[in-house]
Amino acid sequence: MPKKIRLGILGGGGDSLIGVLHRVASFINDNYVITGGVFNAEYDESIKFAQEIDIPTNRIYNDLDALVEAELKLPKEERIQVCSILTPNFLHFPMAKKLLDNGFHVICEKPMTTTYEEAKILRDTLKKAGTVFAVTHTYTGYPMVRQMREMIKEGVIGKVHKVDAQYYQGWMNPIIHDKEKRSTVWRLDPKKAGISSCMGDIGVHAFNMIEFTTGLQVESLLCDFNYLYDDNQMDMDGTVLIRMGKHVKGVIRASQVATGEENGLSIAIYGQKGGLKWEQENPNYLYRLNDPEPLQVYKPGHQYNSKLSLDGTKLPPGHPEGIFDAMANIYLGVARAIRGEEYNDGEFPTMADGVRGLNFIESTVASHKQGNVWVGLD
Amino acid sequence: MPKKIRLGILGGGGDSLIGVLHRVASFINDNYVITGGVFNAEYDESIKFAQEIDIPTNRIYNDLDALVEAELKLPKEERIQVCSILTPNFLHFPMAKKLLDNGFHVICEKPMTTTYEEAKILRDTLKKAGTVFAVTHTYTGYPMVRQMREMIKEGVIGKVHKVDAQYYQGWMNPIIHDKEKRSTVWRLDPKKAGISSCMGDIGVHAFNMIEFTTGLQVESLLCDFNYLYDDNQMDMDGTVLIRMGKHVKGVIRASQVATGEENGLSIAIYGQKGGLKWEQENPNYLYRLNDPEPLQVYKPGHQYNSKLSLDGTKLPPGHPEGIFDAMANIYLGVARAIRGEEYNDGEFPTMADGVRGLNFIESTVASHKQGNVWVGLD
Amino acid sequence: MPKKIRLGILGGGGDSLIGVLHRVASFINDNYVITGGVFNAEYDESIKFAQEIDIPTNRIYNDLDALVEAELKLPKEERIQVCSILTPNFLHFPMAKKLLDNGFHVICEKPMTTTYEEAKILRDTLKKAGTVFAVTHTYTGYPMVRQMREMIKEGVIGKVHKVDAQYYQGWMNPIIHDKEKRSTVWRLDPKKAGISSCMGDIGVHAFNMIEFTTGLQVESLLCDFNYLYDDNQMDMDGTVLIRMGKHVKGVIRASQVATGEENGLSIAIYGQKGGLKWEQENPNYLYRLNDPEPLQVYKPGHQYNSKLSLDGTKLPPGHPEGIFDAMANIYLGVARAIRGEEYNDGEFPTMADGVRGLNFIESTVASHKQGNVWVGLD
Amino acid sequence: MPKKIRLGILGGGGDSLIGVLHRVASFINDNYVITGGVFNAEYDESIKFAQEIDIPTNRIYNDLDALVEAELKLPKEERIQVCSILTPNFLHFPMAKKLLDNGFHVICEKPMTTTYEEAKILRDTLKKAGTVFAVTHTYTGYPMVRQMREMIKEGVIGKVHKVDAQYYQGWMNPIIHDKEKRSTVWRLDPKKAGISSCMGDIGVHAFNMIEFTTGLQVESLLCDFNYLYDDNQMDMDGTVLIRMGKHVKGVIRASQVATGEENGLSIAIYGQKGGLKWEQENPNYLYRLNDPEPLQVYKPGHQYNSKLSLDGTKLPPGHPEGIFDAMANIYLGVARAIRGEEYNDGEFPTMADGVRGLNFIESTVASHKQGNVWVGLD
Repeated sequence: MPKKIRLGILGGGGDSLIGVLHRVASFINDNYVITGGVFNAEYDESIKFAQEIDIPTNRIYNDLDALVEAELKLPKEERIQVCSILTPNFLHFPMAKKLLDNGFHVICEKPMTTTYEEAKILRDTLKKAGTVFAVTHTYTGYPMVRQMREMIKEGVIGKVHKVDAQYYQGWMNPIIHDKEKRSTVWRLDPKKAGISSCMGDIGVHAFNMIEFTTGLQVESLLCDFNYLYDDNQMDMDGTVLIRMGKHVKGVIRASQVATGEENGLSIAIYGQKGGLKWEQENPNYLYRLNDPEPLQVYKPGHQYNSKLSLDGTKLPPGHPEGIFDAMANIYLGVARAIRGEEYNDGEFPTMADGVRGLNFIESTVASHKQGNVWVGLD
Repeated sequence: MPKKIRLGILGGGGDSLIGVLHRVASFINDNYVITGGVFNAEYDESIKFAQEIDIPTNRIYNDLDALVEAELKLPKEERIQVCSILTPNFLHFPMAKKLLDNGFHVICEKPMTTTYEEAKILRDTLKKAGTVFAVTHTYTGYPMVRQMREMIKEGVIGKVHKVDAQYYQGWMNPIIHDKEKRSTVWRLDPKKAGISSCMGDIGVHAFNMIEFTTGLQVESLLCDFNYLYDDNQMDMDGTVLIRMGKHVKGVIRASQVATGEENGLSIAIYGQKGGLKWEQENPNYLYRLNDPEPLQVYKPGHQYNSKLSLDGTKLPPGHPEGIFDAMANIYLGVARAIRGEEYNDGEFPTMADGVRGLNFIESTVASHKQGNVWVGLD
Repeated sequence: MPKKIRLGILGGGGDSLIGVLHRVASFINDNYVITGGVFNAEYDESIKFAQEIDIPTNRIYNDLDALVEAELKLPKEERIQVCSILTPNFLHFPMAKKLLDNGFHVICEKPMTTTYEEAKILRDTLKKAGTVFAVTHTYTGYPMVRQMREMIKEGVIGKVHKVDAQYYQGWMNPIIHDKEKRSTVWRLDPKKAGISSCMGDIGVHAFNMIEFTTGLQVESLLCDFNYLYDDNQMDMDGTVLIRMGKHVKGVIRASQVATGEENGLSIAIYGQKGGLKWEQENPNYLYRLNDPEPLQVYKPGHQYNSKLSLDGTKLPPGHPEGIFDAMANIYLGVARAIRGEEYNDGEFPTMADGVRGLNFIESTVASHKQGNVWVGLD
Repeated sequence: MPKKIRLGILGGGGDSLIGVLHRVASFINDNYVITGGVFNAEYDESIKFAQEIDIPTNRIYNDLDALVEAELKLPKEERIQVCSILTPNFLHFPMAKKLLDNGFHVICEKPMTTTYEEAKILRDTLKKAGTVFAVTHTYTGYPMVRQMREMIKEGVIGKVHKVDAQYYQGWMNPIIHDKEKRSTVWRLDPKKAGISSCMGDIGVHAFNMIEFTTGLQVESLLCDFNYLYDDNQMDMDGTVLIRMGKHVKGVIRASQVATGEENGLSIAIYGQKGGLKWEQENPNYLYRLNDPEPLQVYKPGHQYNSKLSLDGTKLPPGHPEGIFDAMANIYLGVARAIRGEEYNDGEFPTMADGVRGLNFIESTVASHKQGNVWVGLD
C-alpha cells in the first residue's frame, strides 16, 4: 500500500454530521491523512476545531483562496492532493471550479451545483483539469447496491422493463405545518435553498440510484409536486413518471412529509427474467425475485457476490455494515483513481452523475410548473 | 342468531378458486346455507358439481333466468335471498341487473361491470330495488385494514396529505414476452378482456383501498401505462398520479409485470400527525409511524383495536388470519345488512364502491390515451 | 368427490373458539357435514346452539352415551361416522375410548389424554377398533411446515444434527403475578389442569413439530421448569434439553410468561448441508439457509413445493393462508383416511403422535422433579 | 476536546479483520492517534505494515518487552498511554499483565485470558495498577443494546423473570464434518484453542449480553455440549440452563454448527410488565413487547432514547450504523475513562466482565463433563 493521500477538508467543522461522515470514511481504509483545510468560515473556529481533532493547524487556512495559493507553493509531494467540499450548497460550484482550475482532485457533496448550467460548466472545467472528481452519492457505496448493479449488468434479471424508486422522509412535517416556521426557515426560501427542496435534496438520490443500478438513463419525465400550502414555494413531495427507453418505464417517489419515515430510500428493478429490491434502512439485504424459483436474499461478504460488492465489505458475513462503510467505499474508489490504480466502474459517482442530477432536478421543476407535461433529459 | 340466509351461487364450479373462496367465506360465520344456483354454463356440470359438494340438486338451474323464475314461485321464506355472481366479467352486469330487478340481494365479484356506463345503470337499478348489494373488494375485510380506516377516521394521523398505494404482480411476464402467447391469450384481447388489464384487474383494488381507508375521494388523475410491446393493446403496468383534495396528492402504482411479485398490494397513508402502512402479504400487521414516538405495530384481536376491526377477528392474537377470513368478514357484513341488523359503515364494499371503480378505470385509460393529461373523476 | 362425511361434534358450543376453528376446518374442503353431537353439557344449551348454527336438532344428544346408543341404531349409511372431541381435557380419554370401542372415527383435540398411561390404553383400543384417529396438532397442517418435512426427508439439509424449537406465549403473566388470581384459577390447580401447564399445553406442540419435521425421535430429555412463585405448583415456563440420536441434540423452550409474546411457535432445524426455519406467526414463509448459496424463502403455492405442501394450498401464491387453513388441511387428511383413499404420510397427526406427546410431558415433569436429570422416552 | 490519546497496537497487522475493526473504531470519534506497537511477531512485517498504514516506524517494536522498556523512558506526555491487545488468545494474559504492571491502560480482545485462574490474577493486578482496562465485548456498544439496558434499569419491563440468549453461527460445519480437517485445524485442538470452542468463543458473548442488559448475574448453570463426532474434543454447540436469582431462569444457546447462520446473536428479556428483544444482524431495532399495548420498535437517534444510547449514535435516524460504530462506542468510553472524564456505567466492558466470562466458560465445561449437573458461579 502506497503512502496516504493528503486530504483537505472544506467545511464540516463543529458538530457537522457530514463532517463526521467524511472524516470517518477517509480513515476507514487507511488511504487518507487529513492535512489541512478550511473547516469554518470563521478562521478562529477552524483553528479551534483542528485542535480538537488533533490536526496540525499550520495548514488551516482563512479561506479557499488562501489554501490554493499556499498549497501551490509547496512541493508537489507535500501538497494537499484532494479536497472534500462539505460547505453550504451554493458554495459547491465556485469551490469545485477553483480547485479544478488549480489541478486539485475533488470530492464534492451533493448537490454538485445549484443549477444545471453550473454543472455543465464544471464538466467542461474537469475536462481541462483531468483530475479526479467524485460526487458523494453515498448509497452507491453499499455492497448490496453494488451487487445489484453487477447482477443487472450480467443479465440476471434480463432486459429491464420497470423501475420503482422511493425516497420518503418525514422530518419536514413539524416545520411545514407551522405557518410561522415555514415562512422563516431558510430551507423553504427559494432564494437560499434553490429551486427544489424534496426533489433536489433526496429525489435526486433516488434518480441516481436507478441509473446507477440499471445502467440505463432516464430519457424523459413528467412530474407533479405537492407544496402543501399556498404560501409555500418549495416542493415537499413529488412523484415523477419516467421513461428509460422504449417500453421501459418507471416512477420516482420522493417526500419530506411522509410523516414518521426516517430515511426511506428503496429501489425495485424488474426485468423480463426477475426482479431485485433493496432498502437503505436494511442495507445488508438484497432481494432477488426469480419466479419460479424461491425468493433469494443476498448478503454482504459471501463469495457468491461480485468483485465490486466484495471489495466494499470489510468483515465476514453477519457483521452489519452501515452508512460509514458506504461512504468509506466511495473514498476508497477515489483513492485508487487518484493513485492511478485500476478501479471498477461504479466505485465512486463521477462528475457525470452530478451533471445528470442537476439535469433531473431542473427537469422535474419544469415538468411540474408547465402543468405536468413530459420533459426530456439531455 | 337467526336462521341462515339462503345463498345462490352463479359460477364458481369445478376447480374455480374464486368459488372456493366464496363458499368458505359463506361458511365461516355460520350465516349462510348454499341453497342452489348455476355453477356452470353446462347444466350437467352444474349438477355434477352440486353432488360433489353435497348440495341438493333440485335447485340447481339451467341458467339465471330459470333460477329467477323458479325461485320467485317459492314462498318467500324458502326462496334464495342472495346470489353471489362469480361468472366471467362481462356477465356481471346483466346478471346483477336481472337479480336486482327481481328483488334479490347480490354479492358481486369485481369488476362490478365492464364499463362505467353499465355501472351507473346498475346504481339506478339498485335504488329502485332497495336490496343489499356488495362488491367483493376482499382486502377491505382484513381486520388491520379496517383498523387503519378507523384510526384515520378518529384523527390518529391528523389531516391526510399524501397517499401511496401499490399493487404489483408478476404473473403476466411469461405471457407478455412470448409473441405467440400474447397474441392469443384472451386476457390480452381488448374485445374479451375490456379496456384495461393491469388497472382494471388490480389497480382498481389499490384505488378502492385508499378511498376505503382515508374516507377521501380521488378527484382527478393523470395516468401512464406501459404496454411493453407495440403489438400489445392492453396495459401491463401503470402509474397514476392522483389528487384527493387541495394539497392532498398521491400515487397508485400497479403492475402485472413486476417480475417475481406475487400479490404485492400495499398502502401507505401519511397525515400531519403520523403515518399508517399495511401490506397484503403480511396482513396481520399495521404499522403506525408516529414521530417522535417509536414505531408501533398493531395486530389483530387486541383490545386496543376498534370495534370494526375486532368484529372481523375470530381467534386470539398470534393466530394468523388469511384471505378466507377477509372474505368471510365481508359475507358477515352482507348477512347483517340482509337481515336488517345494525352494521358498521365499511363492513362490506357497496355499489358505490363498484361505480367508483369503473369511473377510475375508465379515467386512467382516458388520461393515458390523451397523452398523460389530468382527468377528473365524477 | 364422494358424499360428505357425517361429523358429530362434542363440545365447542357457544362462544368456543376451538368450536369455530373445527367447524370452519370441516367446511373448507367440502368433505364434512355436521350431523349432530353434544355441544354442551346442558342439553338445552346444545339445542339452542344447534339452532343458531342451523344444524338439525334431532341428532343433538344429551350426552355421548346417548349419542352412541342412538347412532348405532341408525343404518350405517346414515350414522355419524366421525366425532370431533372438543371438550375439557379430562374428558378426552373417556370419550375417545367410548367412541373407538363403538367403531367411530375420532378427531381429538390436544392433549389426547391427561396421562401417558391413558394414552397407552387408548393406543391399544385403537388397534382393536381399526378406525381413523387424529390428534389436532394444528400447526402440522401449514403448507410450509409440510414442505419443511418433505425437504428434510429428501435430504435437502443433510443429516440433522441440531434442533431448536420455541413456543413462547405471555398470556399467563397478569394471572401468575396476582396472588389472589393464581390461587383460584383452575388452570393453576393441578387437580383440574393436570401435571403440567406450560409444557403440557404448548411445549408438547413444539415437541410434536420437531418430531414431525425431522422424522427423528426424542430419545431422552433433561428439563427445568420455572414456577415463578413458591405457592404455585404449575410450570409457567420450561427449557428442555433433548437428544434425538447420537450427536443429535437440541432444545425445546416453552413459556407462558414470555410477556407480550402472542403465539410464538418457531422451529429451526440444522443439518450437515443446510438449515430450515419457520415461525407460526408468519406461517407462509420457510427460510432455507444453505451456505454458501444465498438464503432462500419458500412460499406456499409454488410449483417448487412438494406434493404434500401443495395439497394444502388452496389459492395462488401471495394470498396468505392462516390458521383455519392449517386445521382444514388436517380435516382433509382425515377425510381421505376415513374414505379409505390414498393419503400422504404426515397429512394428519395420529394416535402415535398423541401417545408421544403424553410421554414427553410426563418425562419433562419427571426430569424437573428429580433435579434436572436425563429421562429417557419410550 | 483534549489532545488525542496515544494508542499502541499489539497484533492486528496484515489482513487481520480484528485489526481493521479496532483501528477504525479508534479513529471514529477523533480520540486516538496510533503511535506505535507490535503488529506482527516478525519485526520486518510489523515495519512493513506500519508503512502501509502510514504510521511512523520509529515506535514499532520488536516485541512487547521492547515496547514497554522504550516507552517508559519517554516523557509521560509522549508515552503510549493505552495498548490494544489483538494477539492470539494465549498471549492476552501475559501481555495484559505486563502492561498493567507497568502502568499502561489496556483494551483487550476477548477472551481476556484462557483460564479463570489467570483472569483472577489479572483482576488483582489491575487493582494495584489502577489504570483503565476494557474487554471488547463489542456488541454492548450498539445503541439499541444500551437502550435495552437503560430501559430495564428504569423498570420498563418490571422485574425480570426469564431470559433467552442465542448465538448461532454455522461456519464450523465444513470443517467438523471432514475427518481430515477436524483432526488438523488448531481451532479443534484443545492444547491450542483452550478448553472450549463454541462456548468460549461465542457463548460467552451471549452470557455477557444478558448480564449487561439485565443487570443481574448468572448464579448457577447446567450445560450440555454437542461434540458431533467421537474423535472431536471441542464443543461445537451447547445449551446452558441458567439461574439468575430465585424464580429467574433462562437459557443460553450457542452453536458453531447451526448451518447457514452467520452471526446470529439475539437476546430476549421478559419481565412482569413487558419484554425486550434485539438481534445483532439487525442491530438498529429494539422490540418492546408491552401487552396490552401494540408492539413498539425503538430505533437509534430518536430523543425517546436514553442518554447512554444517544451518546453512541453519530447520525440522524434512518442512517443504519454497523459493527464499526459499536466498537467505536467502546473506544469512546475508554477514552473518557483514560482522561478521567465522567462516563456512564456500561460504556465499555471492564475487567469484571472479563473475569465473569472466564468463570462462565469454565463452569459450562464443568457442568457438561460432570454429566449435566448444576454448577454455581462465583
